[in-house]
Amino acid sequence: MRGAVIHAPGDIRFETLDDPKILHPTDAVIRTAVTCVCGSDLWPYRGAEPVGGPHPMGHEYVGFVEEVGSAVTSLTPGQFVVGSFATSDNTCANCRNGFQSNCLHREFMSTCQAEYVRIPHAQGTLVATEEVPEREMWPALLAVSDVMGTGWWAADAAEVGPGSTAVVVGDGAVGLCAVIAAKEKGAERIIVMSRHESRQRLARAFGATDIVAERGEEGIERIKELTGGIGAGSVLECVGTAEAMRQALHSARPGGSVGFVGVPHDVAVDGQELFFSHVGLRGGPAPVRRYLPDLIDRVLTRRIDPGRVFDLTLPLEQVAEGYRAMDERRAVKALLTP
Amino acid sequence: MRGAVIHAPGDIRFETLDDPKILHPTDAVIRTAVTCVCGSDLWPYRGAEPVGGPHPMGHEYVGFVEEVGSAVTSLTPGQFVVGSFATSDNTCANCRNGFQSNCLHREFMSTCQAEYVRIPHAQGTLVATEEVPEREMWPALLAVSDVMGTGWWAADAAEVGPGSTAVVVGDGAVGLCAVIAAKEKGAERIIVMSRHESRQRLARAFGATDIVAERGEEGIERIKELTGGIGAGSVLECVGTAEAMRQALHSARPGGSVGFVGVPHDVAVDGQELFFSHVGLRGGPAPVRRYLPDLIDRVLTRRIDPGRVFDLTLPLEQVAEGYRAMDERRAVKALLTP
Repeated sequence: MRGAVIHAPGDIRFETLDDPKILHPTDAVIRTAVTCVCGSDLWPYRGAEPVGGPHPMGHEYVGFVEEVGSAVTSLTPGQFVVGSFATSDNTCANCRNGFQSNCLHREFMSTCQAEYVRIPHAQGTLVATEEVPEREMWPALLAVSDVMGTGWWAADAAEVGPGSTAVVVGDGAVGLCAVIAAKEKGAERIIVMSRHESRQRLARAFGATDIVAERGEEGIERIKELTGGIGAGSVLECVGTAEAMRQALHSARPGGSVGFVGVPHDVAVDGQELFFSHVGLRGGPAPVRRYLPDLIDRVLTRRIDPGRVFDLTLPLEQVAEGYRAMDERRAVKALLTP
Repeated sequence: MRGAVIHAPGDIRFETLDDPKILHPTDAVIRTAVTCVCGSDLWPYRGAEPVGGPHPMGHEYVGFVEEVGSAVTSLTPGQFVVGSFATSDNTCANCRNGFQSNCLHREFMSTCQAEYVRIPHAQGTLVATEEVPEREMWPALLAVSDVMGTGWWAADAAEVGPGSTAVVVGDGAVGLCAVIAAKEKGAERIIVMSRHESRQRLARAFGATDIVAERGEEGIERIKELTGGIGAGSVLECVGTAEAMRQALHSARPGGSVGFVGVPHDVAVDGQELFFSHVGLRGGPAPVRRYLPDLIDRVLTRRIDPGRVFDLTLPLEQVAEGYRAMDERRAVKALLTP
């Protein structure tokens, strides 16, 4: 089969690879329906994370069950499945607590920009739809496997509820999905920090009520002006930089909550500053598996359409162009079709 | 009148001071019933915070209303009152959100180890009891004005609820009160980290089910052993050092919560470590005013007795000995009677 391999920063190649096989009785192999490039794939692509030798890429996927291991009894070949970027047995103590992305047997997926993918702990990781969904639904279901689940988690961690005022820091695919999540959870006011007109438009279409284009001190001032001088009850940090975290912490009101879902790079939080702010902070890799049944249902009933974050569709073999387009911010998120 | 003044680290004097007066229409002056020395008073006493010239000390108090300003309509001279170490108008946006210790007009009290005290924003800050409580209740009500309110906030911030497993880091007065709070909130298992036998006894009397005497890596291992290998759902950090914060973060399970209520000194939290832990973090100066009516009721109905944290009683004029005894850990907390 063929799939994407990173060789060095900026160097993505579409190569012939070994066909994935069942290695453990708990594995499944799926045939990829659609896959995509994630904002977090850009960290190594941009050299912000070490590459350390050629390796396959991709952790977002929906597909068709091709083959299952002997311990996988709930899935059958031909089923359409949605998974998470983090595998989970869905039975360990952390899974039972709803933190499947901290499963005691977790593996982070990293071979999904390919025609076939081996899924460890398939029974706990994958959720099959009742029927094969129409093709037009696939992008939204693909979004659920990561960015929509991550946006939902941001809203959860930031304690968004009915009547909330929510600030979303970041207008990438996760930030945009976080707007959907805040809206679905009943936020009355959703303020999105964005400087890009096309992303602002999509944010508004998803439910944003206000856009703040300023950054830094000016951005913080603007948020304060919009929130009665004290800041927002919920802030969803969807970037992962020190600047974004600072923006988030200073945009929350005393007693407010920051949910941070962008993998932090060079972020340190000063204990005394956090203390006197009274702001709560919770983040991490999204427990997507917890949300899958609900989010799949919201997509299939056409209540939400996170598939709109894909503004570029390419054949899988042009995966390198997908990276380039996202790196140069020509695209929010690139969908790849095998 | 007379009161305590710090001149330099280790140098507390009991001196004649100006009688406090009504400076603003929203002020009250109270005659101190009992006051005490706080663990946080030891930071400047030990030179861990700059002293910067002689200044009065003390922020915990219960007393009798002596005089009120013209804008104070809900209090009358002679009433017995309990306040908070942080003043609050109890009407601003932060107060209405329940974060009175972040009142837009907050002042931190700092003149309470004295015979009389001026209380700014008296109407929002003070809660009067219906009758003057029996003298034996005064220590418990005094505890409510800070350490018991702070222990309650630790349990709140750590999301302790019915059936919780809670770890309390720190066996000072706040840590011991945090045990009371965890018990009252329905925690089934309360693990206290303590190496001092007398404090362990009091912790058990307050509801602790397990004691862990180990610290550092060993302490973390011991907590994991006691919590099914994954850590506790709620951790109450009642110290404020980097070591205690580390202990707390590593004692919480994925998805668990750390409430941190000791003022952090040289504490920095690594963003990526917090991210991958899935642990939520919230702290700050306790919003004692929010809890006062409830905690006063729990004391007066003899449901709780946080007054037991006072294991040394001295005449106010011997305040310096109170500091010494706490500094040398001969006392958990020194009660001072004018």
